[in-house]
Amino acid sequence: MVTLKDIARMCNVSPSTVSNVLNGKNSMGDEVKQRVLEAVRETGYQPNYYARNMRTSKSGTVGIIVEDLCQFSSPFIVEMILEYLEQQGYRPILMNLRMYYKLKNTNIEDEDALCTILEPVIQQMEAIKVEGIIYVAAHCRMLKKVPKLIHYPAVYSYAYADTDKKSVIIDDETGANDMVSYLISQGHRDIGIIAGSSDNYHTIARIKGCQRAMFNAGILFDPDRLFYGAWDRESGYEQAKKILKKGISALWCMNDRMASGAYQAARELGLEVGKDISIAGFDDHELAATLYPLLTTYELSLYAIGYRTAQILVDLINGNEKALPPDGPLKLKGQMVIRDSVTKKS
Amino acid sequence: MVTLKDIARMCNVSPSTVSNVLNGKNSMGDEVKQRVLEAVRETGYQPNYYARNMRTSKSGTVGIIVEDLCQFSSPFIVEMILEYLEQQGYRPILMNLRMYYKLKNTNIEDEDALCTILEPVIQQMEAIKVEGIIYVAAHCRMLKKVPKLIHYPAVYSYAYADTDKKSVIIDDETGANDMVSYLISQGHRDIGIIAGSSDNYHTIARIKGCQRAMFNAGILFDPDRLFYGAWDRESGYEQAKKILKKGISALWCMNDRMASGAYQAARELGLEVGKDISIAGFDDHELAATLYPLLTTYELSLYAIGYRTAQILVDLINGNEKALPPDGPLKLKGQMVIRDSVTKKS
Repeated sequence: MVTLKDIARMCNVSPSTVSNVLNGKNSMGDEVKQRVLEAVRETGYQPNYYARNMRTSKSGTVGIIVEDLCQFSSPFIVEMILEYLEQQGYRPILMNLRMYYKLKNTNIEDEDALCTILEPVIQQMEAIKVEGIIYVAAHCRMLKKVPKLIHYPAVYSYAYADTDKKSVIIDDETGANDMVSYLISQGHRDIGIIAGSSDNYHTIARIKGCQRAMFNAGILFDPDRLFYGAWDRESGYEQAKKILKKGISALWCMNDRMASGAYQAARELGLEVGKDISIAGFDDHELAATLYPLLTTYELSLYAIGYRTAQILVDLINGNEKALPPDGPLKLKGQMVIRDSVTKKS
Repeated sequence: MVTLKDIARMCNVSPSTVSNVLNGKNSMGDEVKQRVLEAVRETGYQPNYYARNMRTSKSGTVGIIVEDLCQFSSPFIVEMILEYLEQQGYRPILMNLRMYYKLKNTNIEDEDALCTILEPVIQQMEAIKVEGIIYVAAHCRMLKKVPKLIHYPAVYSYAYADTDKKSVIIDDETGANDMVSYLISQGHRDIGIIAGSSDNYHTIARIKGCQRAMFNAGILFDPDRLFYGAWDRESGYEQAKKILKKGISALWCMNDRMASGAYQAARELGLEVGKDISIAGFDDHELAATLYPLLTTYELSLYAIGYRTAQILVDLINGNEKALPPDGPLKLKGQMVIRDSVTKKS
């Protein structure tokens, strides 16, 4: 049987170079890569994928469990997780729970139902002997039961586990503070808010940031100007129809989808966005740059969340204590994207 | 060492039930599932994930290679591939080539560069001993070199390989024919087209469908009213500024992103979309339902493509010849999504 060492000898390279080529690393020249791959093809050598590093009893494999790849944020977070793992020579095993599809007829907040989907996936991760797990949530919340199933070095991305676990989430509170402070800097003091659903983590943290911005500017927060939507265009439209009649000069919607609905409501009320009423969103979803006027919004730090999550996991695996952030959620800021839908109050 | 049979005996179920639970199938009751998972936890039983079915020498595993998960179409195609494989009891191994990211500094049409990324992934698939491979492309084209690397039962999704391979793609020609026929049915005879890039498969097939619709309606196709964009909003805007001055009453853009740019151009020229000028898109991207007026477009059959692709692969694996479509691309129709941006010519 052909071994890795045979291939190395044939190609006049070190065994680790052969291993690097087969693991998709790009540290060697194209010529070397071609030579190795050719030898592998010619000899019919079959690397034992999951038995790699038997000697060190390390699999070199990391599990990435994604709650839902169809959620717009997931592919971008995963992109940078893969980028970092590849740089570090880890092999990813990507599993998609398809949570929204599978729980569509039940409550998607039902963590018991989620665990029923997750458990077999964890079993598979155990069988593969992954060295660690990255759990990419579809929306932010405190996960209570999921972490109990994961007996590995693990980092949670876009949601957080108990306070003694590592997780990386968006800094909703700072984002909201930045956004509302920006509205205030443009002369707006009568500000309406269309929040997400009332029990949602993003909603709660963003209201906090909003309160802080108003407080710091000496503006009394008026709960009558806060309406709860459901993150979709329709609820943005419905709530905007009510809130736009409340004497506000600026409206902040907690995501871009709801802002697109608010545009529609403004039009129907004869208000020109960016002139009669300023409207801002959140997420910097692709649609924000296609609305008219172009939507001022806040870009989520999805790439940074993915990259940092993977870094922390690799540090956990390697026991690199010094590089680790404190337990609990690490919050990463995004940035304002200033376009045309918010203008100075005249 | 605890074996699968031990677990089965402890739980008073058949070994295949234990296997089904561990593979995430949902054919058994919740009570049985809980009992099995508890026994697995208690005993510390470790299923040998990739050595399953040593007896039949089948791995039960299917590789899904996605060119780019960040492309908007990919997660939806993958969703239904996973759904079907799960129904059939196959375990998916999902690999993301991240083609756009990795080839961003070179020509993304460079199939040699793509093969350099693909080759190690194929090596890994061989090591895992997958029974078949599904290759999900990020945009449609004829793949010439990629299929040479894949020595497995394979089905190509959203692109096609040589004519002797199985692939499932969108029926661009019929889609274009349906769209342009619809514009004609609304009284439009002076129709402008903003196509995608000129050498692109989607572009070529859609121009064909467009020609057919016009020919059947007795309208001479005017190449002066066909402009090539680059699939993005900016090129839609730039090309629309020119084409809207050519005496047309309707403009079809070959994707929704370019249509959103055309909206902007129309506004700047003082034309009201859906009144002075009809504009249609293609894709039914989420942004289509947030533009004003809501964009009439054509929904791609992404879910159907994923599902059908997986079906064909399973039939290939099982040698179920009768169920297989002929070699070459199988084209799946989408459907018109009629909203407000196209109106009857007055």
